[in-house]
Amino acid sequence: MRVLVLGGDGYCGWPTALHLSAAGHDVTIVDSLCRRAIDGELGTQSLVPIATLDERVHRWEWANGRQIAVEPGDLLDWPFLSGVIARHRPDAVVHFAEQRSAPYSMIDREHAVYTQHNNVIGTLNLLFALHELAPDCHLVKLGTMGEYGTPNIDIEEGFIEIEHRGRHDRLPYPKQPGSFYHLSKVHDSHNILFACRTWGLRATDLNQGVVYGAATPHTALHPDLANRFDYDGIFGTVLNRFCVEAAIGHPLTVHGQGGQTRGFIDIRDTVRCVQLAAEHPPQRGEYRVFNQFTEQFSVLDLARLVCSVGGDLGLAVELQHIANPRTEAEQHYYNARNTSLLSLGLEPHLLGRETTAELLRLALEYRQRVRPDVIRTHVRWQGRGMATKLATAAGIAGEVQAGVNGD
Amino acid sequence: MRVLVLGGDGYCGWPTALHLSAAGHDVTIVDSLCRRAIDGELGTQSLVPIATLDERVHRWEWANGRQIAVEPGDLLDWPFLSGVIARHRPDAVVHFAEQRSAPYSMIDREHAVYTQHNNVIGTLNLLFALHELAPDCHLVKLGTMGEYGTPNIDIEEGFIEIEHRGRHDRLPYPKQPGSFYHLSKVHDSHNILFACRTWGLRATDLNQGVVYGAATPHTALHPDLANRFDYDGIFGTVLNRFCVEAAIGHPLTVHGQGGQTRGFIDIRDTVRCVQLAAEHPPQRGEYRVFNQFTEQFSVLDLARLVCSVGGDLGLAVELQHIANPRTEAEQHYYNARNTSLLSLGLEPHLLGRETTAELLRLALEYRQRVRPDVIRTHVRWQGRGMATKLATAAGIAGEVQAGVNGD
Repeated sequence: MRVLVLGGDGYCGWPTALHLSAAGHDVTIVDSLCRRAIDGELGTQSLVPIATLDERVHRWEWANGRQIAVEPGDLLDWPFLSGVIARHRPDAVVHFAEQRSAPYSMIDREHAVYTQHNNVIGTLNLLFALHELAPDCHLVKLGTMGEYGTPNIDIEEGFIEIEHRGRHDRLPYPKQPGSFYHLSKVHDSHNILFACRTWGLRATDLNQGVVYGAATPHTALHPDLANRFDYDGIFGTVLNRFCVEAAIGHPLTVHGQGGQTRGFIDIRDTVRCVQLAAEHPPQRGEYRVFNQFTEQFSVLDLARLVCSVGGDLGLAVELQHIANPRTEAEQHYYNARNTSLLSLGLEPHLLGRETTAELLRLALEYRQRVRPDVIRTHVRWQGRGMATKLATAAGIAGEVQAGVNGD
Repeated sequence: MRVLVLGGDGYCGWPTALHLSAAGHDVTIVDSLCRRAIDGELGTQSLVPIATLDERVHRWEWANGRQIAVEPGDLLDWPFLSGVIARHRPDAVVHFAEQRSAPYSMIDREHAVYTQHNNVIGTLNLLFALHELAPDCHLVKLGTMGEYGTPNIDIEEGFIEIEHRGRHDRLPYPKQPGSFYHLSKVHDSHNILFACRTWGLRATDLNQGVVYGAATPHTALHPDLANRFDYDGIFGTVLNRFCVEAAIGHPLTVHGQGGQTRGFIDIRDTVRCVQLAAEHPPQRGEYRVFNQFTEQFSVLDLARLVCSVGGDLGLAVELQHIANPRTEAEQHYYNARNTSLLSLGLEPHLLGRETTAELLRLALEYRQRVRPDVIRTHVRWQGRGMATKLATAAGIAGEVQAGVNGD
């Protein structure tokens, strides 16, 4: 299968590109490298050193014998994007190429506008490119569980059967996203559903939970294949960040009561979920949604797990409840469906003590690279323009810990 | 009350600005004049001659004694927009400043991107400006009934109570918009709801039905105060367009079976609905939705009404069922709630034979200004880039009639 991996240089995109390549697919990475540029803007870097994209794909060919092509460019650049689709005529496009941090989208107006413009217009361009140049192609789009918010009823996979005043319909599940980033994914979902219904495109929207982990079997083959690992307050997801905090003797910063419950997934399952979706395409005209997570945890569950496993490794780990920078419920009902990917054969890596210990050992190995000052940020959901001057946030020691997770 | 009317030079915005001014409010119009520029792009013009915005507001002061200030500029221009909000510190902002034509958004990729970028980012800028500079201001935002699509259950006003697997919640009503334009309004609604919940802004989202009519008592005071009246296939709403077709002896072009049912509203009620919403603001933090229509009709109902009333005026009016350029159900359930504005005191102008006769007489008066070639367009919902070359569509005689209505 000819597969384009958009955003194939990123935290989820890179291991997915390797996984699909190893599975025998003809993979091309499309990436603007903007994630690396944002590291420069924020003064952050991956905990684990990462090679350039060129080095990565050459090392992959050396290690595995398979080529991965690279198309450097931006989905906002229509001549570039349409040229790529026209040249490659992909069977599937896996689309990770979006700004994926909720705190980043909440820094200030410019970052909110950047996020919605980049994500929504980039995806809109992609829909037109597929419609005009590759209408049979399967779009595998990364959404987020955060599109749903925390409703007081069970979360279904994209659609819900509603009985109302004696009548019935199956309708898109109501969305209550919690940041300008999450909103951008909701906008995408509506645009994609429309394109499927109107143009007969086919798409799978993968509403992914919070991802944790670092390596997959393929990224572990050589240091040049290593995956990025973010621990900063803007892009670090919660479990990864807790492990780094534990490794440097920083208390685990829990937002408020820590009762925020979300779906989580191991990055080793992310790559398999994408493969399962891509290898089982929907019919033309079908828009389907898979909830891509394997387990539900509260933030406090994870903090306690890291405390406990850290103790086994000889670390003295403390919890610190801090003011929640987000506007969100800290105690709420949460029960989300995730049967579609299990039905396709997903065998989850569940989060146990060993996985947590591996992450802690990784954080300890690279602890000298940690910049403690980027673990916290000033980004507050209710802030009023104050964050503007912090956009170039290198070296700022903040008052408030941002982000339950990067996503 | 200090009120900014964004988009105050347009079909709904201009009569609303006059109505609010006449009601004693201190009105400032903010407009980029892009609607007039689009007339240039499409080779279209208002059936009724309209004065420049400067002439309009000077004539209003002469006729009524009240001043309306003008701030010419674009919501995409942050220094401009933030300056306007900072200088005026409005009590209410009435926001019509969006690209409002569904067919226009479906011309091609460029027009889809223009529509979503202009509408979504413009509104996002406005939300930030209010949050940072006028957090107590009431945002009165024009949405559309088209956000809901045509679900098989009753349409509520923005939210719906859902019982699901033994639990209950009140959630945003699921949206099934039918064009990139309608999608942009759905995106806006999600962004505004989030801003109210996160920042404590207050907003009323007016999900307006298809507007018909031309004059209000204030626009009728002098020819320089006349409102624009669109009949072309891109911006003309269905009843207005049928009246022009009847006046020039063109058969009424009904899309498919004509069973498409929608909510409709007289423009004389539009201005009163906005006034009612503005004068009864919600609490800080509240996002409320009013469905702003007074009656439901099918397209065929309206065509038959125009035939019948046209007959009384001596016109021989015929119906022509043509291929539907849109992707939409032509027979469907439709029952939408509209009690909120009635509860606030709206006394609707219902659509009768006299209103229809007035519109027909207006069309007859200006029939020499009609360009028959712009009544039809090539815009098709399922088109594949073919419409691109028609973006500068002056003088094109098309195969397919576009648009159940401009909205």
